[in-house]
Amino acid sequence: MRKFCVSFLCVAIFSFAACAAPTLRARTPVLIPDVPGYITIKGDFHMHTVFSDGYVWPTIRVEEAWRDGLDAIAISDHLEYLPFKSDVSPNRDRSYEIARRAGDPLDILVVKGAEITRDMPPGHLNALFITNAEALAVPRWEDAVEEARKQGAYIFYNHPGWQRQAPSGVGTLYAEHKKLIAQGTLRGIEIVNGPEYYPEAFGWANEHNLTMFGNSDVHEPIGLSYPAGSDRRPITLVYVKERSIKGIREAFDQGRTVVFSQNRLMGKEDFLRPIFEQSVKVLNPKFPLRGTERKLVQIHNISDVNYELELAEDHKQINALKGITLNARQTVLLQVSGRSKEQSGGGKVALRYRVKNLLYGPREPLVVSINIELL
Amino acid sequence: MRKFCVSFLCVAIFSFAACAAPTLRARTPVLIPDVPGYITIKGDFHMHTVFSDGYVWPTIRVEEAWRDGLDAIAISDHLEYLPFKSDVSPNRDRSYEIARRAGDPLDILVVKGAEITRDMPPGHLNALFITNAEALAVPRWEDAVEEARKQGAYIFYNHPGWQRQAPSGVGTLYAEHKKLIAQGTLRGIEIVNGPEYYPEAFGWANEHNLTMFGNSDVHEPIGLSYPAGSDRRPITLVYVKERSIKGIREAFDQGRTVVFSQNRLMGKEDFLRPIFEQSVKVLNPKFPLRGTERKLVQIHNISDVNYELELAEDHKQINALKGITLNARQTVLLQVSGRSKEQSGGGKVALRYRVKNLLYGPREPLVVSINIELL
Amino acid sequence: MRKFCVSFLCVAIFSFAACAAPTLRARTPVLIPDVPGYITIKGDFHMHTVFSDGYVWPTIRVEEAWRDGLDAIAISDHLEYLPFKSDVSPNRDRSYEIARRAGDPLDILVVKGAEITRDMPPGHLNALFITNAEALAVPRWEDAVEEARKQGAYIFYNHPGWQRQAPSGVGTLYAEHKKLIAQGTLRGIEIVNGPEYYPEAFGWANEHNLTMFGNSDVHEPIGLSYPAGSDRRPITLVYVKERSIKGIREAFDQGRTVVFSQNRLMGKEDFLRPIFEQSVKVLNPKFPLRGTERKLVQIHNISDVNYELELAEDHKQINALKGITLNARQTVLLQVSGRSKEQSGGGKVALRYRVKNLLYGPREPLVVSINIELL
Amino acid sequence: MRKFCVSFLCVAIFSFAACAAPTLRARTPVLIPDVPGYITIKGDFHMHTVFSDGYVWPTIRVEEAWRDGLDAIAISDHLEYLPFKSDVSPNRDRSYEIARRAGDPLDILVVKGAEITRDMPPGHLNALFITNAEALAVPRWEDAVEEARKQGAYIFYNHPGWQRQAPSGVGTLYAEHKKLIAQGTLRGIEIVNGPEYYPEAFGWANEHNLTMFGNSDVHEPIGLSYPAGSDRRPITLVYVKERSIKGIREAFDQGRTVVFSQNRLMGKEDFLRPIFEQSVKVLNPKFPLRGTERKLVQIHNISDVNYELELAEDHKQINALKGITLNARQTVLLQVSGRSKEQSGGGKVALRYRVKNLLYGPREPLVVSINIELL
Repeated sequence: MRKFCVSFLCVAIFSFAACAAPTLRARTPVLIPDVPGYITIKGDFHMHTVFSDGYVWPTIRVEEAWRDGLDAIAISDHLEYLPFKSDVSPNRDRSYEIARRAGDPLDILVVKGAEITRDMPPGHLNALFITNAEALAVPRWEDAVEEARKQGAYIFYNHPGWQRQAPSGVGTLYAEHKKLIAQGTLRGIEIVNGPEYYPEAFGWANEHNLTMFGNSDVHEPIGLSYPAGSDRRPITLVYVKERSIKGIREAFDQGRTVVFSQNRLMGKEDFLRPIFEQSVKVLNPKFPLRGTERKLVQIHNISDVNYELELAEDHKQINALKGITLNARQTVLLQVSGRSKEQSGGGKVALRYRVKNLLYGPREPLVVSINIELL
Repeated sequence: MRKFCVSFLCVAIFSFAACAAPTLRARTPVLIPDVPGYITIKGDFHMHTVFSDGYVWPTIRVEEAWRDGLDAIAISDHLEYLPFKSDVSPNRDRSYEIARRAGDPLDILVVKGAEITRDMPPGHLNALFITNAEALAVPRWEDAVEEARKQGAYIFYNHPGWQRQAPSGVGTLYAEHKKLIAQGTLRGIEIVNGPEYYPEAFGWANEHNLTMFGNSDVHEPIGLSYPAGSDRRPITLVYVKERSIKGIREAFDQGRTVVFSQNRLMGKEDFLRPIFEQSVKVLNPKFPLRGTERKLVQIHNISDVNYELELAEDHKQINALKGITLNARQTVLLQVSGRSKEQSGGGKVALRYRVKNLLYGPREPLVVSINIELL
Repeated sequence: MRKFCVSFLCVAIFSFAACAAPTLRARTPVLIPDVPGYITIKGDFHMHTVFSDGYVWPTIRVEEAWRDGLDAIAISDHLEYLPFKSDVSPNRDRSYEIARRAGDPLDILVVKGAEITRDMPPGHLNALFITNAEALAVPRWEDAVEEARKQGAYIFYNHPGWQRQAPSGVGTLYAEHKKLIAQGTLRGIEIVNGPEYYPEAFGWANEHNLTMFGNSDVHEPIGLSYPAGSDRRPITLVYVKERSIKGIREAFDQGRTVVFSQNRLMGKEDFLRPIFEQSVKVLNPKFPLRGTERKLVQIHNISDVNYELELAEDHKQINALKGITLNARQTVLLQVSGRSKEQSGGGKVALRYRVKNLLYGPREPLVVSINIELL
Repeated sequence: MRKFCVSFLCVAIFSFAACAAPTLRARTPVLIPDVPGYITIKGDFHMHTVFSDGYVWPTIRVEEAWRDGLDAIAISDHLEYLPFKSDVSPNRDRSYEIARRAGDPLDILVVKGAEITRDMPPGHLNALFITNAEALAVPRWEDAVEEARKQGAYIFYNHPGWQRQAPSGVGTLYAEHKKLIAQGTLRGIEIVNGPEYYPEAFGWANEHNLTMFGNSDVHEPIGLSYPAGSDRRPITLVYVKERSIKGIREAFDQGRTVVFSQNRLMGKEDFLRPIFEQSVKVLNPKFPLRGTERKLVQIHNISDVNYELELAEDHKQINALKGITLNARQTVLLQVSGRSKEQSGGGKVALRYRVKNLLYGPREPLVVSINIELL
């Protein structure tokens, strides 16, 4: 780890000796099953570097993303807030250039972005897929937005419930935002930013057909906010037709995202349902059930999500656990028993559960079926 | 957890309330890919209960196996050593009966067995698939073995290197064993017992065509020997044609086992090679390589094994890392670079690595290829 | 781990070879500071073995307690419920005898007990410090209690809110209990049993001056209910004058216990306050504070408790964090700042916080001071 | 985590809401007992920032050090290697200025330093306690060293075994180094740098009376090299008379350091012995031992070091375990037994063990006594 060498690359570049311990530099996949017809891109589209008020060199954002199992990131340094400019180049296009060069060898897609950083309204807006960040650094925010639009940017509204700009703790959709939405200039919104979740923003997204984002907005090294062993950073799952910057843009335009944060998946039912169905398998769906005897249904979950199930309606024929968590990467036991001494067979049975952490609206949990067959 | 209830079942039986925390009672799969043409049974075929000198009730062995991701166990209480007999029934068939009833609802296959426990020679022998353990409790070990044979038992030699019976630390294959082997009465051998590995026994297995076993020989609750977070118990992987007691027996007879212990897989090349090939995938196998430039090959490993690779031979055209561990459930980077300024393209390249922890003999690591294509 | 040897003892007894890995058989202390004038005994006074409906041999309860950092346990097998009696001796005094012999070499104090196991009322009662368990196995529960009393037993009421006997989920103090309390025969109560906490029982304890207990009531191996890395079992902290069975009894008689469960400490203020004060230290209590500047107060916590603080009252002079958790075995930063531009010095300042998880009543959190001095 | 705010400070500064989860921003102490007569400073005196070829802002080095339980760091950016100078100010004094301002509120001592970065000889030298880094950026390394000397610098030799400058893998002490040592200009040496340990350098330190250092030389965020849960970074323990920059310098001058890395403590016996003696306590030192009976000696270790003991000499009277690891923060059992049937009492017994990971020379493990008394 010395002169002439990108330290963590050194491990590989200069140590041609045999090793036995687990390799330190490793990528851990995020296990969320794909949705038929799409490729899943795991992304974080809001982060900072020393080129604005972040604390790391742009290459680190790529390395962190690779290790965290992400496919894509956006560098979104502040346009108007450059606290380190006496020491670091104020060139607003540099952080992207540096990050992109680091992304290619690791196959991390780096989206060029910038954060329009103003008082409320409109607060902070991320402009992605821009071509020239410098050109966005203009006095009036309206002009910055207009320039971004000209560059073909995709713009979303950041941390609408951020306490400093929404002291009530609950954010507001200002007239300015509604106007941008009506114009088709503002297309998305963060419903999760770092540790914060904004249910009201989730509602606005559904109401105004805005694409949902969950981003880290990380400034420091990611490990200081999300240490190994604790919760992972927020992730925006993007359902693309091709794994490319272009593919990501097309999916944003079509609103094909799901937010994964703090063991919650939030987005449209069309994506949540297949994710659940691809994640969960009943290992022993067929068995006899006579009278009030008890049976154990083994349910395996291949994903990284702990699905929190709550019985949505009692079944006329059988008792089933009122609540159970389908643990990530494990198999659990769902207890069922006949309701009456007369119970015998019954054929196909669908047990209806609410999945408390799969939400298609701020108060709308997905309802799923656990299907068994009584012989 | 009270009167009238099998404690850990209670959690489910009596709590019909909603829950959010991960479910405590859960099964963690052991991720070893299947081998084409066979079903993989994960088993532990040597363990004890309070019915000999173990410290748990037989049902616990089933619960532990289920949680540990096993498919099959054998209860193998000592025939001659019953230290608790003043308090616990000396009936040598009881522990199996109790365990089997607990196994059925969890779909754990329970093999009836007993440990013939004598001084060396022959030391300790496990007789599995027996029908009557009591009948094996006879003064002469030769008669016990003969009775087991009559019952159609499958017999293997336990912990041949166990210090108390092999003070040199290295075991011996006595004339008595050789005779039993010649007769076809002794068919298998433990090359791993609990924390101990016996390389010499591995050699005998290959020489005399004995089926290899790796068992825990656990006496206390498994968690006291293998706490969560530490190394898992030894496992005997059995390659069966049907998931049943009968299927296990047929696989034992045909020697279709692999031992998994302390991050080592030991067995026949025919099984080790497909396990490795099904575990590991090169994510970006095709790329250009010009001159001495460096490239990163991303290798993903879906298994629970950390494969420890060591370059077996230098490649004429490219430099590759001399040593790398392919971490379990992660992706790592294999560094390659051209050897000369003239390097350009080259088509298919097979990098040959020794996998230090995949052994088909005590000193015979498997050699594998990491295949890439230089454009 | 074989014939003639208490398996987990073997590790030490028979392996006289050098080792480097951490020792497997180890005791992890429970870090709760002592209270001036007393020795702290960490105990679990309700557990089962194969001699009633438990699943482990009595020696295991001692080994588990030693590893878990406990000083004392009570074996409390059911008197009336012996589901394994066709296989295990029904002698109700055996489990204690076996456990005690295992306790001595490990310096674990083993209290002789039994669980009087009846329908409600009176439900289940633990009788500790008895001399003859067999004599308690009589038809009428009143006679069992009377016999226990004659033997000088200390009797407490088990899991008063257990759903099967308190279907409402909330328990009741029946006339039978009140009578026993009035007689001075029923002296204590479980406010925590395994994963369950009974706030109402906490209230009864205060109202009727009953000694509080938090016990595991474990039936299976402790690791199946409390795996390494998850929450630890409930512990009853006993404040004794001498570390002995006699000392424990005297402390029970005087009501000197605190219950530690799920990061809560519950008991009398006289014990909670010194525990907190001995746990927590302000590392930099003295500093200047001018105007509205911010300062960081470093607070170190040596205990295993994460103290959850909530500002109880605003301080006239300075702003302090409204909420902060003082992490177990770590140092955290308490942010303070002047309220006005005129702020300057001010001398001793006591910041008043409610500790949400230190309770001297079901709804009575302890209020503490964090003391600093403004120069 | 946004505009106008040092992100990880925000957690505290802007969230005045109540919290219950453990506080994210926390310091974990490094548990190494103090040595009588001195204060222990835990330091890392070699690290980089974006002002040379590191990847983080200088404030991050302070935050990482605070969380890792360190007391002091030195910023030691390369003088001659500034790969980011087109984007980051080449002012060699800036990284220290920025780090120092961050250190004060957290009470982290920040030493001003610079790395003289040349080909071998002399390779890389760290100059600490300098006053003007710019003045050291001169063409000839001899002049850089001379300027540092004039500024009153303390100079040590970095990673003498670093493969790139010592291809044999073993370093050399060149004539240039010997001359600087003879002059009293070169006073210390790294025997540990990041993951590398140089036994030969340890030998030179003893031979030439050089102060020993173990430093991280970290370039990326520390968590990428030392993730939570894995091994911690190397630490130089400094034995000071006062906790200040001046105190550190005085201790360096007097050679009062110990290196802690990968569970090894390396330094002078005068420090190693009290560290061990303050760490380890026999909980039950006095007991009778009759004939060949076995007893368990409970040994508690309060430190973060796993002491690896190996019996140094057999005791005439009793057998003791040949090898045992005294686990960090746990109690383990040392088995002893009488050697003969005649064994009875014997008074004070000192069991002599080599501590394999306490080294006062490359091949000199400390020998300690475990003292018991046979009644």
